[in-house]
Amino acid sequence: MKVLITGGGGFLGARLARRLLERGELCGQRISGITLLDAGFPSLLRNPLLRIVEGDVADPGVLEKAVEKDSGAVFHLAAVVSGAAEADFDLGMRVNLDGTRLLLEKLRRCERPPRVVFASSVAAFGGELPEVLDDATTPRPQTSYGTQKVIGEYLVSDFSRKGSIDGRSLRLPTIVVRAGKPNAAASSFASGIIREPLNGAISECPVAPQTGVWLLSPGRALDAFVHALELPADAWGTNRVLNLPGITASVAEMLDALRRVAGAGVAGRVAWKPDARVQAIVQTWPVRFRTPRAVEMGFKADAGMESVIRDYMTDEKIEV
Amino acid sequence: MKVLITGGGGFLGARLARRLLERGELCGQRISGITLLDAGFPSLLRNPLLRIVEGDVADPGVLEKAVEKDSGAVFHLAAVVSGAAEADFDLGMRVNLDGTRLLLEKLRRCERPPRVVFASSVAAFGGELPEVLDDATTPRPQTSYGTQKVIGEYLVSDFSRKGSIDGRSLRLPTIVVRAGKPNAAASSFASGIIREPLNGAISECPVAPQTGVWLLSPGRALDAFVHALELPADAWGTNRVLNLPGITASVAEMLDALRRVAGAGVAGRVAWKPDARVQAIVQTWPVRFRTPRAVEMGFKADAGMESVIRDYMTDEKIEV
Repeated sequence: MKVLITGGGGFLGARLARRLLERGELCGQRISGITLLDAGFPSLLRNPLLRIVEGDVADPGVLEKAVEKDSGAVFHLAAVVSGAAEADFDLGMRVNLDGTRLLLEKLRRCERPPRVVFASSVAAFGGELPEVLDDATTPRPQTSYGTQKVIGEYLVSDFSRKGSIDGRSLRLPTIVVRAGKPNAAASSFASGIIREPLNGAISECPVAPQTGVWLLSPGRALDAFVHALELPADAWGTNRVLNLPGITASVAEMLDALRRVAGAGVAGRVAWKPDARVQAIVQTWPVRFRTPRAVEMGFKADAGMESVIRDYMTDEKIEV
Repeated sequence: MKVLITGGGGFLGARLARRLLERGELCGQRISGITLLDAGFPSLLRNPLLRIVEGDVADPGVLEKAVEKDSGAVFHLAAVVSGAAEADFDLGMRVNLDGTRLLLEKLRRCERPPRVVFASSVAAFGGELPEVLDDATTPRPQTSYGTQKVIGEYLVSDFSRKGSIDGRSLRLPTIVVRAGKPNAAASSFASGIIREPLNGAISECPVAPQTGVWLLSPGRALDAFVHALELPADAWGTNRVLNLPGITASVAEMLDALRRVAGAGVAGRVAWKPDARVQAIVQTWPVRFRTPRAVEMGFKADAGMESVIRDYMTDEKIEV
């Protein structure tokens, strides 16, 4: 089984590659190679099964190199993140829309329709929303990033219906806690307020304490990617889009959990620096979901905010 | 006010041009020119206000000619129809998706954000549907045409949110009765079973008599295009997509109405020629809607199937 991970140099992509190398198999088949495609690779895994393609996911020549005739499993994670796609409309359209479209066109030429997991987002939703969203809520994104993700979902569904691929789109909650540096995602603060204080640094929080977030840990997100790929096609039927389970926490609740896990000294390392632009984007995202379809299909949320923080500390070998 | 109609050589586009010429104004402003863009013009209106651009709506050079700096009102009707987009995936993607995308990019360069009415379709819906759809039903198209229309809606909404255009997408019911010749739309039969018998010809019906259709007359569709354009932006708010009102009729009910209006001799001119491909496409479309939002916004359905037939006979000067 040949695997392709777009965004393979990113936070989730690199961890997914490591997870797959540890696993050694997908869908009961031995993994014979993993191609990582990304614009850059801040840190490189070393493994003979890995093949690195560095370049722009919206460049047909780069995709030509990345997609193999016998690519069997594709995780499409590459994207310009929410804040950046809102600030630079053309960049977001090129990478998030044209890139996805071009990738699907290349995959159509594979010897057999590959299974494709597309990382969509809770940013698909916006506008006037019910208090609790569910599997029937219509996406009405209020960001260009969300729009591009929804369009990607529709493309993945139609390419699947036509038999060109066997696709599955997952609407990811905000991923918390991301290791590493802050990024241009409007949701970057949700990891920052946990990560930076644990590093001994002050985190600047651009949104109000009562701001709610629908979130999932990186570990559960990787579980979801693998599970989504391994589920048989008939578990999906004609509906190839899924809201993943998650948990709801306000910024204040996240800091309370941090205090319980790591102490008041750590949890106090937050400076409130309201940023109207970020608050405006984040406010359009939904905070509460019922996800019966995903739960029935075997997808799992985290147990709670404290376990999310403890898992992060274990992964990153942080002690307090 | 400069007007652009894409698909201006088509059935609805040409009638819309005539309607606008009769009206002479839009949004309280005198119409100073109407550009018709289409791949072909079977019959040409003659009027000094008309400008004809013949070419491919997905060709940047053609769009360059069609869009003017001061285009103020745009009706985007050009499309590869459902049956053709299903038979030729690449053609549908190029015209319906790339064409719409390119048009919006051109309109972004106008001096002022033009008002844009985008002709979307009831084909946006498919898959497992409720008995009666409403304004909250999520589009899950089961045709490439429907997918491309939904993607167009999301693009129109995001370009509107960003202030590049002031867009409004209308999900049109099946238009009945279309004059002229049958076309490659899977819904072509719905007009054919009225039009051909009234012309003294036998109509071959590819679907079963109990097949239901959600329909709107050409006259009410033109009313809707103009009304959608003239409504102020705040009547739309952040939701720029609307299910138009219509009426529900089965093929058998349509033929009953034809018998009442034109006699049993006319209504008997139907040959049943089941076509599994057409039946499969049409069956994915919804048949019953509640459209409270559209009704509240002032959009109107036809009074009934008999009035749809009588209006057609009046328009086409047909007597029986």
